[in-house]
Amino acid sequence: MSSTQANGSQPHRFDPNFTQSVIDAMGPKTDPRLREVMSSLIRHLHDFTREVELTVDEWMAGVKFINLIGQTSTATRNEAHRMSDVLGLESLVDEIAHKHVNESGEEPTSSSILGPFWSPNAPFRELGGSIIQDGVPPKGQPTLMHGVITDLDTKKPIPGAVIDIWQASANGKYDFQDPENQTPNNLRGKFRCNEKGEYWFYCLKPTAYSLPTDGAAGALFTALDRHPMRPAHIHLMMTAEGYKPVTTQLYPRDDPYVTNDTVFAVKDDLLIDFLPRKDDAQAGLDLEYNVKLAPREGKTAPMEGVARL
Amino acid sequence: MSSTQANGSQPHRFDPNFTQSVIDAMGPKTDPRLREVMSSLIRHLHDFTREVELTVDEWMAGVKFINLIGQTSTATRNEAHRMSDVLGLESLVDEIAHKHVNESGEEPTSSSILGPFWSPNAPFRELGGSIIQDGVPPKGQPTLMHGVITDLDTKKPIPGAVIDIWQASANGKYDFQDPENQTPNNLRGKFRCNEKGEYWFYCLKPTAYSLPTDGAAGALFTALDRHPMRPAHIHLMMTAEGYKPVTTQLYPRDDPYVTNDTVFAVKDDLLIDFLPRKDDAQAGLDLEYNVKLAPREGKTAPMEGVARL
Repeated sequence: MSSTQANGSQPHRFDPNFTQSVIDAMGPKTDPRLREVMSSLIRHLHDFTREVELTVDEWMAGVKFINLIGQTSTATRNEAHRMSDVLGLESLVDEIAHKHVNESGEEPTSSSILGPFWSPNAPFRELGGSIIQDGVPPKGQPTLMHGVITDLDTKKPIPGAVIDIWQASANGKYDFQDPENQTPNNLRGKFRCNEKGEYWFYCLKPTAYSLPTDGAAGALFTALDRHPMRPAHIHLMMTAEGYKPVTTQLYPRDDPYVTNDTVFAVKDDLLIDFLPRKDDAQAGLDLEYNVKLAPREGKTAPMEGVARL
Repeated sequence: MSSTQANGSQPHRFDPNFTQSVIDAMGPKTDPRLREVMSSLIRHLHDFTREVELTVDEWMAGVKFINLIGQTSTATRNEAHRMSDVLGLESLVDEIAHKHVNESGEEPTSSSILGPFWSPNAPFRELGGSIIQDGVPPKGQPTLMHGVITDLDTKKPIPGAVIDIWQASANGKYDFQDPENQTPNNLRGKFRCNEKGEYWFYCLKPTAYSLPTDGAAGALFTALDRHPMRPAHIHLMMTAEGYKPVTTQLYPRDDPYVTNDTVFAVKDDLLIDFLPRKDDAQAGLDLEYNVKLAPREGKTAPMEGVARL
């Protein structure tokens, strides 16, 4: 009743040669790494299909769903990115990328997923400036965020290191999702540290929000009886010439969704505390967040790590 | 260095609880079968990702590709369906569906994939009529196709059984891909057998053709160094009240692509021979194809099997 597949596929009672024949259709000019990735993907897709004995109706529902993902996407909405987050893939890829750093003997720098809302166009702002460009929104809680970016090995500050911050407004929307209320680059900005590696700027205490539920991801949330909420978070990307870039997210420790983030991105050491701030007309809250960057081998441009975008 | 996952996932050196936490996010109202399917899908997607240690760049390339699939699709073009064919999924689902028939003790009726070109709107035509509505195209070879549809168990003919045929023209295109040369329902038609279970009509000897290569599937063919050709084929769907419907494809035995079909749909017993036909002004070729349908238990509508479309 069962036959064993080569290459790690699971035993099953169907044609034992079928999956390999699909893999073997790849021609000799296929890039070796792509061959490795696609061979594994085809084996797992087929193993999944056989394991659950996927019916024709279920397969066709999947086909329609895959089409819906791309049809939901627009120039400012990446539903395939969101879908992969909802299935935990971006967090997993982040863990895998990070594990490599671990094994090279360096202390891991906390990282988290990029998400679909980073913009390559965020402007540099002056230290001490504010990313709250459109005025404090209703329920918004202005915060002075500040810290020092240092070298993991030497413990010395990194003058000129760049911290890129982006966050949703208090209504849970990013600028390009919310053109009625926000101008472009509201709640986004890049800051260059001073000679002491220090940065400081004004932002908002972040607000928990729902992923958009009118597209493919929404259909999946309903079908899987899952909530669409992300815990409140601040997105950060830190870069400096000669250092490995770090992309991360910070979460207020008291947010009810930090234990059940719908994109599985929270890690314990990314939980932060907002403290009261006195005598500052611009902000009632204070957030200190210090960053350690690991040196990278060889000379590379500081933005190399995000060139993929 | 490795930990073993519950539920059949492969050992790996990453967070051993992550995949289960994504699965466990499904709420209590999830349909039980959907929970089974999605649990397996999530496990295999994660196993694949860990197995090849998918990089951030590769993951992002996958995200873009998934979006491209839906963006390539239109009202008359189902790229996700095509993509699943190119990865062998529709053929595999067809084998799985068919295996069930096998195990109930009945002789298997040869089946093959539906493909994305079936139309629910094909008209009934008179026995002896022709599906070549727009005149014989250049290089077209008209054929009289005929046969008897019988009951697998009693061997008796099935009066009123319906045979639905669709095929590409000699330029490799179906009617709705080719509005400049073909009117709607050219090379499509349904025929109802006579009292002796006989059918006969005129069609073309089919022509090998390339899948469209300007979309997501085309990008994959190039990357995987694969050709986009399907062997020449005739699509058929046979239905009769009280019988299990059969969807299949027939392939001329002498076609060079029957051994390397890009959607992996050819089976040996679906290879057919076109014979010379004499004294027929309408056709120079003859194709006999007899069909056996298995009775189904209980009374059901003859089209139930295709209601999914």
